[in-house]
Amino acid sequence: MSSSLQYYLQRNNQQLAQWLATQPYADHALLQAMKHGTLLGGKRARPYLTYVTGQMLGADCDDLDTPAAAVECIHAYSLIHDDLPAMDDDELRRGQPTCHIAFDEASAILAGDALQTLAFEILATGQLSEQGDAYRIRMVRELAQASGAAGMCLGQALDLAAEGGQISLAQLETIHKHKTGALIRCAIRLGALAAGDKGVAVLPQLDRYAEAVGLAFQVQDDILDITSDTDTLGKPQGSDVALNKSTYPALLGLEGAQQKAQQLYQEALQALAAIPYNTDQLEVFARYVIERNN
Amino acid sequence: MSSSLQYYLQRNNQQLAQWLATQPYADHALLQAMKHGTLLGGKRARPYLTYVTGQMLGADCDDLDTPAAAVECIHAYSLIHDDLPAMDDDELRRGQPTCHIAFDEASAILAGDALQTLAFEILATGQLSEQGDAYRIRMVRELAQASGAAGMCLGQALDLAAEGGQISLAQLETIHKHKTGALIRCAIRLGALAAGDKGVAVLPQLDRYAEAVGLAFQVQDDILDITSDTDTLGKPQGSDVALNKSTYPALLGLEGAQQKAQQLYQEALQALAAIPYNTDQLEVFARYVIERNN
Repeated sequence: MSSSLQYYLQRNNQQLAQWLATQPYADHALLQAMKHGTLLGGKRARPYLTYVTGQMLGADCDDLDTPAAAVECIHAYSLIHDDLPAMDDDELRRGQPTCHIAFDEASAILAGDALQTLAFEILATGQLSEQGDAYRIRMVRELAQASGAAGMCLGQALDLAAEGGQISLAQLETIHKHKTGALIRCAIRLGALAAGDKGVAVLPQLDRYAEAVGLAFQVQDDILDITSDTDTLGKPQGSDVALNKSTYPALLGLEGAQQKAQQLYQEALQALAAIPYNTDQLEVFARYVIERNN
Repeated sequence: MSSSLQYYLQRNNQQLAQWLATQPYADHALLQAMKHGTLLGGKRARPYLTYVTGQMLGADCDDLDTPAAAVECIHAYSLIHDDLPAMDDDELRRGQPTCHIAFDEASAILAGDALQTLAFEILATGQLSEQGDAYRIRMVRELAQASGAAGMCLGQALDLAAEGGQISLAQLETIHKHKTGALIRCAIRLGALAAGDKGVAVLPQLDRYAEAVGLAFQVQDDILDITSDTDTLGKPQGSDVALNKSTYPALLGLEGAQQKAQQLYQEALQALAAIPYNTDQLEVFARYVIERNN
């Protein structure tokens, strides 16, 4: 896992650096802030899922560079905006000052905006030779649907609205299904779409895997917010508690949350069992999700 | 002009309302803020340009609905974000409280984010039957390039960086070429692309028209900030002066700015003279731009 994660991480970083180098005014605060928000650290979990899903289905690795970079740009923009004072007001991310601290609020807002735009420019422009234009258009549509008012943005809005109040487990799942789940699911789907019809055929099974793994990712995030420390996390430990956020440990207890993560891991494995390809890397990823310490 | 502007305005509003109705959680602050930022007023200059350019070249009006709605979503998102306290800190827009005043800053940031996403969802999903997928992909690419770190976002970043300092006329033109010019040019180009090869053939002439009209639009905005009043403008008169912004009247004097607008109008007419179609509506628009009082 760690060597293939490392390989795809470096590959994705190189792609992001190349795309950012296509933009003018390299020395301007806008582009510096965009680079700060994308190139300084991060696990690259979403690009990894795009790559290993696509490769499992026989997609050309060069064709996976495009959706992997696009998805990571959306993720990076969402972190920059989520960290803003009016949102989660975080000063530390990936062990670095957040974008609005390193630059200023206006630059952080604009850098996030322009990174979202870049995601769609990449999908419309990047290499995708194996499949036809219809697949490229479908990727644009799926990325938009996963990111906007029916996906990630909605999740963040629901999360902010729930702050400080008591919510049910079902409501918490709805939040995370949108806030983090939608983009993780999309990362996997775009990897499959790069493999064409072969990928389309297993989308339902991949969705089941994605939904389990996406939720497990969030449960583990909540657990780490309690059990880890700021240095390991690269962001302030205990920030959920400080913001009075509803979390899985708050609703289920720490042990209950850990059981929930285990149960989701088992659901992910069951979904993979129905996929007639070598799912080893997706299986290892599911284990990594619930065993990671940052 | 006013009757056709009215017709396309209503048509575009209807389209925007329909697209917003496809998003879930209609009662949530996120969607309410998105509606506030799109449906309450606005001149719809960009959609108008998409429609009349496309119709001049024989595009189906139903096919123009898609790029017109997408371009307006980008414009609406940019206004919401530009009005934020960390940017221009405006409380009034189109005679209404700005989005972060009517809702809150977090909702305004997310509403802008989700409206940008919706623009690309519309381009990837909306009707575009006349031309092939390659044209749809080209529209996504052109809209992204006009909106992001090489276009509108860059323009806003350059504008913010110039605040409070003295800049040259050339620097001011660079700012506006990106901040407002790029999206106006894109609105016209997408209208042409909806007409297929016939549209592609006149893109260079349309670009010349767009560049003149786009700059004239900004010169007139600067003039109105001095000569008009808050009620007519629907936003605070004198806000450029209050923010110590460089403007055409500040650099050229009021009369010099009015001459500049006239000169750009003539350039726009010259560009239209080279287009072998009935350019009446584009001509009327150019006159409207420099004669409008809000």
